[in-house]
Amino acid sequence: MREHPSSVRRLLVVKGWERRFADLIIEARRLGISVRFIGEEEGARKSRGKDAKAFLETSSFCYTDEEDLLRRIERTDAPALAVFDGIYDPQNLGNILRTAACLGIDGIVIPKDRSCGVTEAAIRVSRGGSEFVTVARVTNIRRFLERLKAIGLAVVGLDERGDKSIFELDLSSPFVFVFGREDGLRRLTRETCDLIVKIPTSRGFPSLNLASTFAIALYEAKRQRLRGA
Amino acid sequence: MREHPSSVRRLLVVKGWERRFADLIIEARRLGISVRFIGEEEGARKSRGKDAKAFLETSSFCYTDEEDLLRRIERTDAPALAVFDGIYDPQNLGNILRTAACLGIDGIVIPKDRSCGVTEAAIRVSRGGSEFVTVARVTNIRRFLERLKAIGLAVVGLDERGDKSIFELDLSSPFVFVFGREDGLRRLTRETCDLIVKIPTSRGFPSLNLASTFAIALYEAKRQRLRGA
Repeated sequence: MREHPSSVRRLLVVKGWERRFADLIIEARRLGISVRFIGEEEGARKSRGKDAKAFLETSSFCYTDEEDLLRRIERTDAPALAVFDGIYDPQNLGNILRTAACLGIDGIVIPKDRSCGVTEAAIRVSRGGSEFVTVARVTNIRRFLERLKAIGLAVVGLDERGDKSIFELDLSSPFVFVFGREDGLRRLTRETCDLIVKIPTSRGFPSLNLASTFAIALYEAKRQRLRGA
Repeated sequence: MREHPSSVRRLLVVKGWERRFADLIIEARRLGISVRFIGEEEGARKSRGKDAKAFLETSSFCYTDEEDLLRRIERTDAPALAVFDGIYDPQNLGNILRTAACLGIDGIVIPKDRSCGVTEAAIRVSRGGSEFVTVARVTNIRRFLERLKAIGLAVVGLDERGDKSIFELDLSSPFVFVFGREDGLRRLTRETCDLIVKIPTSRGFPSLNLASTFAIALYEAKRQRLRGA
């Protein structure tokens, strides 16, 4: 669960065993994995004679393989991608998938570790959007970004400390947006970016929600591409 | 609670009385009011000798009066407002307040009835943003929009069935955005609008989240105004 939280869909714990599995439950919630308590009977059915009292359901969401995504990107005219350096909140990821389905994007990339995945909660929040979006999980975000650079994508980080506003950038060419976690871009990821742009927020209160930042950035790209067309 | 849900911050119920107040609890949750269960002792303290077992906490959020907002708008150069025809989800309202604080807007208007208000949950989600935003509650949204029209604001509805994309509209003049509920603009509200614009979403999956729609619309206005400056 801790190593690949994004591939875990749900933790099930038999009622009456909450205390015994308290640490596991806390850890699951921290990782954004939803927890459901089930009756003795359902537990017995699930454990198939093994008398287990806690179960990890693995994800039913179908991720795209990293290599497949890269091959697809190479065949796409002016591809647009979004890489997240980790998302902790399935509500945020669900909203991101909903927006991605609405506005259109060639792929969403999240890390295999240190990130929540397309959990049941994320799928619910996406209101069906998750079905329309290509999501890949990669082991090393930085290496993946280098590979995208090699095939001609501009690596554009989004951070409130960016020099330029996003609308000052030409987004008609191939690009990948890089979003930090809920608390900003990490140094190493930041250094991999070709440039850093910001959403023009007020100085007194600059902290935009991750899903809203994504919505605005994707809209701006779409606006420019529609205008140019 | 049902008449002015937006002025109720929280419902408190003494533990052990959940069943007795089940209808009230269900209604509160439906209206987006958070419910907390408190101990006997806290209940006794709150009831001050009256032996009550359920309490409605009224909002601590300071709303702006409708007339004050109008007076302020008249003195503002190129005002920008957002009117919501009802929001049910405090999470959405909280995110909207956070974005409003980030991007800047002269006021957010919600109906007194048929809407959640700036509840404790909304304030928490806004991450401090609620402190920076002017929020007014009005009795009649339609009449309020007519008054805004009279002082020169363009009434711009946002709906996925709009003819134009939002970026085709000049937002440098005074305007008020009108957002429907989570399920779209109501007919009467729609008819009050001077024009209806859309966010350019894909046909197969057009349903953008309300908070994301708001973020994109406000960003577009800010972009145009920064560009023009």
